[in-house]
Amino acid sequence: MKKIKQIIVGGAGFIGSNLIKKLLGQGGPIYVLDNFSNSSPELVADYLAGEFVQKVDVSRCNDLREVFQKILQRSDRYDIWHLAANSDIPSGVMDPDVDYRDTFLTTYNLLKVARDFPLVNSFNFASSSAIYGDMGGDKIQENAGPLLPISNYGAMKLASEAALSAAHESFLPAVNIFRFPNIVGSPATHGVIFDFVQKLKKNPARLDVLGNGEQKKSYLYIDDLIEAMLHIHRINLKLNRHLSFFNIGPLDEGVTVRQIAETVVSIVSPDAEIFYGHGNKGWVGDIPKFSYSIDRLLSTGWMPSFTSLAAVERATFDIKLQLLNLDHNTLFLS
Amino acid sequence: MKKIKQIIVGGAGFIGSNLIKKLLGQGGPIYVLDNFSNSSPELVADYLAGEFVQKVDVSRCNDLREVFQKILQRSDRYDIWHLAANSDIPSGVMDPDVDYRDTFLTTYNLLKVARDFPLVNSFNFASSSAIYGDMGGDKIQENAGPLLPISNYGAMKLASEAALSAAHESFLPAVNIFRFPNIVGSPATHGVIFDFVQKLKKNPARLDVLGNGEQKKSYLYIDDLIEAMLHIHRINLKLNRHLSFFNIGPLDEGVTVRQIAETVVSIVSPDAEIFYGHGNKGWVGDIPKFSYSIDRLLSTGWMPSFTSLAAVERATFDIKLQLLNLDHNTLFLS
Repeated sequence: MKKIKQIIVGGAGFIGSNLIKKLLGQGGPIYVLDNFSNSSPELVADYLAGEFVQKVDVSRCNDLREVFQKILQRSDRYDIWHLAANSDIPSGVMDPDVDYRDTFLTTYNLLKVARDFPLVNSFNFASSSAIYGDMGGDKIQENAGPLLPISNYGAMKLASEAALSAAHESFLPAVNIFRFPNIVGSPATHGVIFDFVQKLKKNPARLDVLGNGEQKKSYLYIDDLIEAMLHIHRINLKLNRHLSFFNIGPLDEGVTVRQIAETVVSIVSPDAEIFYGHGNKGWVGDIPKFSYSIDRLLSTGWMPSFTSLAAVERATFDIKLQLLNLDHNTLFLS
Repeated sequence: MKKIKQIIVGGAGFIGSNLIKKLLGQGGPIYVLDNFSNSSPELVADYLAGEFVQKVDVSRCNDLREVFQKILQRSDRYDIWHLAANSDIPSGVMDPDVDYRDTFLTTYNLLKVARDFPLVNSFNFASSSAIYGDMGGDKIQENAGPLLPISNYGAMKLASEAALSAAHESFLPAVNIFRFPNIVGSPATHGVIFDFVQKLKKNPARLDVLGNGEQKKSYLYIDDLIEAMLHIHRINLKLNRHLSFFNIGPLDEGVTVRQIAETVVSIVSPDAEIFYGHGNKGWVGDIPKFSYSIDRLLSTGWMPSFTSLAAVERATFDIKLQLLNLDHNTLFLS
């Protein structure tokens, strides 16, 4: 049987480049589609030859269709891993078009084009805990409602889930929806740890924190995330499950921004003083306290290797190294 | 105090024209925005002078902005009633762009433009029971999850709700989300009663029904719907509620397609024979058995006047009259 082609959309970013390392050698050829707006071809150049890396803005449907026509025959079976999105939540609050274009339209266009290549095997979508909105600190299960996202990022992830659900009813045989918590590790391009490390590089004596530091969230280490995605993809194929959606996260209820600040300072610049702001929100659309249940995923036999705190520690080391390497003009990922 | 302008988007259609009749004389001036793709300026010409009826495709953001600049000052307070949508669910299954453009983009663009006119009082949105997907016949409450719509129509209504929820967090003071069941009455442009009456006009001896006739759904008479929308808008303003979402529907669990066919035949062409198809779905994206709870709305003091069956009967008379009038080349609404 012909091998199943793997199409990784937004594949040259933080999560994509880590996914590719694990997918290598597991099956069919891997294609990366990316606009490199927040990512880099160098991130995947070590693993994939040039023709497998396609520069394309997936929010432009005709451009996307051209790339599909280049890399796929109508007789090819293929999996889509859709990781492309605006990952900068505050920027989408300032300008809703960012999430509309990069988070929703990318999903919508992939569905439109996938309809023309009939042997799609599965559509794997990086959704988010942000679809749940602010549920007041309760442990959120997958069936929770109502879904009232408070950021455009969360809204456009939920809009994408809705489009996938309808597409599943009409033509798409298998849909795996992964609801991500905050993911940490390298190569980071944004996020609280990345920000703190960069601030401390600029001023090793002082770290200013948005908000009062009491915001508490779950953090998952990148390796745990990739294992969970591949695990869900594998078991659903095996169990012949057609539309699945799983919260992915650590076992614990998360760490506070204060704990993150202290961890980063201790690793990057132990003498720095930490200054906190006011309020329990860092920005509009930020959710102050957040944890969700991963019972459904645990019941399938998956288990994370790291706690939120261990994930933060490990990611801080990774990001420190990553930024050091950047300074020395070496490869982004070395 | 200056009166609040009422902007009815998709206002020249079935629901809009009925809403306008009730809003007349209740407050500020009424503006209708409509592309007249599935509606007609004649429907509102009896109530509104020409300058209050603006032809615009709301899925084109710049065109929409121009109309807002024409009818609104930045110092004007205004309510938006957003009724524009693709209302032909099967057509959106064939071509996803129809729902994307007419159902989702219209909402998205209204939010973009409303940001520029700061004194928005409330955004009232015609959502749908279709956001819930196929929940297997249970009575669906507003907080139900997971939300897995099975039509693009439902998906784009859910996407719109998500965008409204995020907009509420960042700039929109009040959002009323009305989740409609099937609404019947005149002037109808589509729907099962309309189809049956038209079929019987063509062939008074025979009525062919899609599916086996066992599909069961709730139907609400148009007057009950309008009363519910105005009631929710009023109490939320009074109670200072900021983001509300209500199922709207009749008290009963609905009627079957068989009951509708028999009702329409008895009123329009009593001698016709009815022929049923196979299966319990009329089309992809159709939900065979569906009922939802209106307990939340009842608890606020609203009560429907008609059962599903009474609504179907009354609507059949209305539509029979409407189509007769069309034949005689009189006004669409006479």
